[in-house]
Amino acid sequence: RMDALFSGLHPADIADLLEQVDGGHRREILLLAGHLVDGDVLSELNEDVRRQVIGFLPDAAVAEAVRDLESDDVVDLVEDLEVPEQQAILNALDVADRVAVEQALAYPETSAGRLMQRELVAAPEHWNVGDAIDFLRSNKKKLPDQFYHIIVVDPAMRPVGYVTLGRLLASKRAVPLTEIFEESFRVIPAAQDEAEVAYAFNQYHLISAPVVDAQERLVGVITIDDAMNVLDEEHEEDILRLAGISESNPSDGIVATTKRRFPWLFVNLITAILASMVISTFEATIAQLVALAVLMPIVASMGGNAGTQSLTVAVRALATKDLTVSNIWRVVRREVLVGLVNGVIFAVVMGAIALIWFGSPMLGVVIGVAMVVNLVIAGLAGIVIPVALEKAGADPALASGAFVTTVTDVVGFFAFLGLAAVILL
Amino acid sequence: RMDALFSGLHPADIADLLEQVDGGHRREILLLAGHLVDGDVLSELNEDVRRQVIGFLPDAAVAEAVRDLESDDVVDLVEDLEVPEQQAILNALDVADRVAVEQALAYPETSAGRLMQRELVAAPEHWNVGDAIDFLRSNKKKLPDQFYHIIVVDPAMRPVGYVTLGRLLASKRAVPLTEIFEESFRVIPAAQDEAEVAYAFNQYHLISAPVVDAQERLVGVITIDDAMNVLDEEHEEDILRLAGISESNPSDGIVATTKRRFPWLFVNLITAILASMVISTFEATIAQLVALAVLMPIVASMGGNAGTQSLTVAVRALATKDLTVSNIWRVVRREVLVGLVNGVIFAVVMGAIALIWFGSPMLGVVIGVAMVVNLVIAGLAGIVIPVALEKAGADPALASGAFVTTVTDVVGFFAFLGLAAVILL
Ligand SMILES: [Mg+2]
Ligand SMILES: [Mg+2]
Ligand SMILES: [Mg+2]
Ligand SMILES: [Mg+2]
Ligand SMILES: [Mg+2]
Ligand SMILES: [Mg+2]
Ligand SMILES: [Mg+2]
Ligand SMILES: [Mg+2]
Ligand SMILES: [Mg+2]
Ligand SMILES: [Mg+2]
Ligand SMILES: [Mg+2]
Ligand SMILES: [Mg+2]
Ligand SMILES: [Mg+2]
Repeated sequence: RMDALFSGLHPADIADLLEQVDGGHRREILLLAGHLVDGDVLSELNEDVRRQVIGFLPDAAVAEAVRDLESDDVVDLVEDLEVPEQQAILNALDVADRVAVEQALAYPETSAGRLMQRELVAAPEHWNVGDAIDFLRSNKKKLPDQFYHIIVVDPAMRPVGYVTLGRLLASKRAVPLTEIFEESFRVIPAAQDEAEVAYAFNQYHLISAPVVDAQERLVGVITIDDAMNVLDEEHEEDILRLAGISESNPSDGIVATTKRRFPWLFVNLITAILASMVISTFEATIAQLVALAVLMPIVASMGGNAGTQSLTVAVRALATKDLTVSNIWRVVRREVLVGLVNGVIFAVVMGAIALIWFGSPMLGVVIGVAMVVNLVIAGLAGIVIPVALEKAGADPALASGAFVTTVTDVVGFFAFLGLAAVILL
Repeated sequence: RMDALFSGLHPADIADLLEQVDGGHRREILLLAGHLVDGDVLSELNEDVRRQVIGFLPDAAVAEAVRDLESDDVVDLVEDLEVPEQQAILNALDVADRVAVEQALAYPETSAGRLMQRELVAAPEHWNVGDAIDFLRSNKKKLPDQFYHIIVVDPAMRPVGYVTLGRLLASKRAVPLTEIFEESFRVIPAAQDEAEVAYAFNQYHLISAPVVDAQERLVGVITIDDAMNVLDEEHEEDILRLAGISESNPSDGIVATTKRRFPWLFVNLITAILASMVISTFEATIAQLVALAVLMPIVASMGGNAGTQSLTVAVRALATKDLTVSNIWRVVRREVLVGLVNGVIFAVVMGAIALIWFGSPMLGVVIGVAMVVNLVIAGLAGIVIPVALEKAGADPALASGAFVTTVTDVVGFFAFLGLAAVILL
């Protein structure tokens, strides 16, 4: 029954299913249907569940499963394992495959070198269409499972262009390959970060791209399906980091989740205490006019939200390279002016509400002015802080949120309570 | 000089450059180098800038630029234009191309039908490899610019499988196409939302996929580069909506930006006032013990952050279909328990701090208990609200944030001040 159920599913869906059930059910499924977990399913699993599944399956089964995979998938699979498990899998591979995987592992984590597959089709510059077709026909067994281009290399193995299979099929045998190169040709340095690789694929509509070493020699090829996967992971990283989470998997338990949520909440506690210290310097003022305690969270909250808006726009624009030296000042100016305009609108609205609510015109003026000040500062901080973090080599998505809301809390409480102390008492 | 500068750039980079400069510079560049803006550059521009550029260029130039594009890019270009501009461009196309574009425009916005291109290669079921290769060789002129598969159709034009060009090239002429089908074959209904299309490409590693109409007949093909672009846009939508922004382009001016930021800030003002009304019911309590005003933002802020963490995880998991009926209760339970564990830890920390700061053990107890309550509710609201919105057919990324922080503000202030009123006074 399990067999029938699983056999209709794509490996990616089997993997999702294994990730979504809890640990106990997962073991039961593996007990009944472990033989159905092949290399494709393993390479779709997230790191934690994959380690558990590999630990559960017999070593021989894992080795067998891995044999069918392309080298990039083997690399992705073994890079997260402990050395003994890694060795067991590598030993199960043919010598050529093992060398390919070991060379890829020599490149830094999250680099293009880790993402590339070694299986590719290259042709010398002097070949024509007929040579290439004959080569493909006489090397059927050795061709990659999936390939979309023939990469043309010079005698030093440096890629000089590539030809799509469609173009190859539609050209006369006598046409030199160099005459039917694609316009979109770009090579990717093996040391380049995978986020840059994903950006290049999306920006330039690449379907596959040759990877080169420091000497510009061809060492592998990256295909768009893997680049798309990286793009998706980079997005996940950004959206989670903006909320203060390092990672999240459907399979995470309570302990792992608590550990991943705690650090940010701790940072937030410290910044919240900082804001409270600002409030406490105005205790005497609040004691005289309790309305201030009622209204002060509004100023802080509006600043926090406006700051988060600017911050999110900045983080996204940095990721898509749409925030550059050429427009940074225009964007800073825009954010500050938008803060000013919205600040003035909300100052009028909130001033009127405060007036009606507490019957004090001056209280309305105080909250209005504090609102303008805080929204202007929010726009400024929301853009300057992430840009500064990026310049400093930090991830703007990671820490900006804490900085920005600290700024808007402190400025909000200080402006509102400070003005109240000066004007109202 | 402009020519030399532009000619080295990819159309996507030229488009980014035009988006990043301000309106005045953009007009100057177009005046000097308008002839360099071809169809590829136009199709890379965002909607606003594109409309401006099309308005600036002579109609004939635009029509000419559009002629070289594949049908999907023409659709993407004309779908956002006003009817007269749309007609001017459609009239410039060959009859066959115009019909293709008009048929695509008949599908709903953001559907697979809008995303597909009509240029494709199809083959009848009875063909073998030799037939297909001969067909490609004798139809060179009519082949799409880029294609990776031959789609095999039955006599009713329903796709039954596809063959990669690599496999075609590596097979003997006599092999029937039906014997070398790819395993990954999936068809996409033309009415399917583009977000689902992007999910399918990423989940199943599709490179291209046939699109079918309601009668399951082949009407087009979607390629992964376009699916990757949709994935990127869906991510942008999610990350911006979580921050309360409908849209953001590097080219946006102050007015457009203010309009896009205002609605969320307005919603936030209302929810902040709601929270203030909770505080105001405890004015008498605060007047007796101003320390409460100092500490109350900490409880609300911790709840807001914990709620945002759960919410972001939920929004992401819904987008990747990792939060399903099969694991929803496990996830709800996890979020609540994580809230409880973190709540207890921070209750102890904050209780101790309150004790030291204000010298009152009972104040420490009050803030501790309020913290536990608010973090548990935050975990619950953070997961239940987005799931409920999704069930109701709304976008969980769009409105969840306002709901969740309202809940954590109200619960935070009420629990803290209410407990204080009962216990301390
Ligand atoms: Mg998965
Ligand atoms: Mg990996
Ligand atoms: Mg990365
Ligand atoms: Mg791959
Ligand atoms: Mg990043
Ligand atoms: Mg860009
Ligand atoms: Mg662009
Ligand atoms: Mg194109
Ligand atoms: Mg469009
Ligand atoms: Mg969409
Ligand atoms: Mg396309
Ligand atoms: Mg969405
Ligand atoms: Mg998934």
